[in-house]
Amino acid sequence: MHHVRFRDPAGAVRTGEWHDDAITFGGEHYAHEDVEILPPSEPSKIVCIGRNYADHAAEHGADVPDRPMLFLKGPNTLAGHGDTVTLPSGKDRLDWEAEIGVVISEQCRNVAAEDAMDVVAGFTCFNDISNRDDQREEQNWVRGKAFDGSAPMGPVLADPEHVPEDARVTLRVNGETKQDGSRDQMVFNVPTLIEEITTYLTLEPGDVIATGTPEGVGPLSDGDHVEVEVEGVGTLEHSVRIP
Amino acid sequence: MHHVRFRDPAGAVRTGEWHDDAITFGGEHYAHEDVEILPPSEPSKIVCIGRNYADHAAEHGADVPDRPMLFLKGPNTLAGHGDTVTLPSGKDRLDWEAEIGVVISEQCRNVAAEDAMDVVAGFTCFNDISNRDDQREEQNWVRGKAFDGSAPMGPVLADPEHVPEDARVTLRVNGETKQDGSRDQMVFNVPTLIEEITTYLTLEPGDVIATGTPEGVGPLSDGDHVEVEVEGVGTLEHSVRIP
Repeated sequence: MHHVRFRDPAGAVRTGEWHDDAITFGGEHYAHEDVEILPPSEPSKIVCIGRNYADHAAEHGADVPDRPMLFLKGPNTLAGHGDTVTLPSGKDRLDWEAEIGVVISEQCRNVAAEDAMDVVAGFTCFNDISNRDDQREEQNWVRGKAFDGSAPMGPVLADPEHVPEDARVTLRVNGETKQDGSRDQMVFNVPTLIEEITTYLTLEPGDVIATGTPEGVGPLSDGDHVEVEVEGVGTLEHSVRIP
Repeated sequence: MHHVRFRDPAGAVRTGEWHDDAITFGGEHYAHEDVEILPPSEPSKIVCIGRNYADHAAEHGADVPDRPMLFLKGPNTLAGHGDTVTLPSGKDRLDWEAEIGVVISEQCRNVAAEDAMDVVAGFTCFNDISNRDDQREEQNWVRGKAFDGSAPMGPVLADPEHVPEDARVTLRVNGETKQDGSRDQMVFNVPTLIEEITTYLTLEPGDVIATGTPEGVGPLSDGDHVEVEVEGVGTLEHSVRIP
């Protein structure tokens, strides 16, 4: 099933089912264009993974880390499918980073890798938008990674069985393919990430793990239209405004 | 006024007034020991400031940064007055860091320094507990700073007028004074921090800015009793368990 959070024409927030021809909830059918698609969960935090694809680490001239590189985005970073995201002005490099987002199903701590898929609600598409100007200068990537609107995600939460172990992750800007990777290229796989994170942090229902990006990151421009497609999930679309 | 969030004997969460002899809410009086004191707000994120006292930067052998050094703690880090906080096991250095916590009153973005006190609900006591083993090895301080229980705060939210510009910040471990600084030693003052943070991030009501620690940090041991006192606020007390 593909779950979708949306605001219906009356303004009520619902979690329904995404179908190609309609969104359904409570016996009602809505055309996709008649509702506002919301991020598929309400995370208390987003735990992001840096350099989790060897080819992306290489394009930054960096080594693959010997354990997962973690950083945080707060709820202020969220944006949804169909949104126009306003990014910081006056920066030289605001980059796209297509990722698979893992949504957590239950409060959990100290989860062993072999049990980790039990706490996964499903997968979504994620864009880890990055402000390189500040990221390069910061110890902790707050201005660089945790600014408002830096985490578009959606459009749906796909049950895990829809997303194969080698699911493709692609990103297009204005229709042109820029990134094309696969889940099985991750340095640390999803169960390993969950075990490592929950050694230190309690995860809550709706929390998101952004699993890192494959090679092909590059700069966004004002007015760009971005699509992040994850095989088995669907395609997140958003636009960018740089004042 | 000194505001206190607490769980009353019936289990209801209330925000009342803290007095030396009692806590009051809705005409009821409660003895301090009859209620559970909760963190004074429910932040969506905690924005912490590194090296914001020159003497503390020096004790780490670090320079004072040329703009505020930011890092994040999520809601999983919260602990309250009177709690026994369980810290990560197997680490060599888990340090205390006494700080003034600033609690935000309203959703805000792009706040100029001269208007910044308008978005401050008040001040609280904060302990930015730090896992140095991992902090030293990480680009972003997630294992090092954002682990469960790493942010005891409380016991109250004091209205801003109670906290002088040169408020003392002291920390005692098992009754012995370890840190003794003053708000006026901050490299970047509270209005400057709010302007800088809200250039990039929207702050929400209840969000906390942890304003950095003066010199005198040091290692916690299993069973330690910690007091963080901020002049005009009161004293946060908690204990530490290291399995």
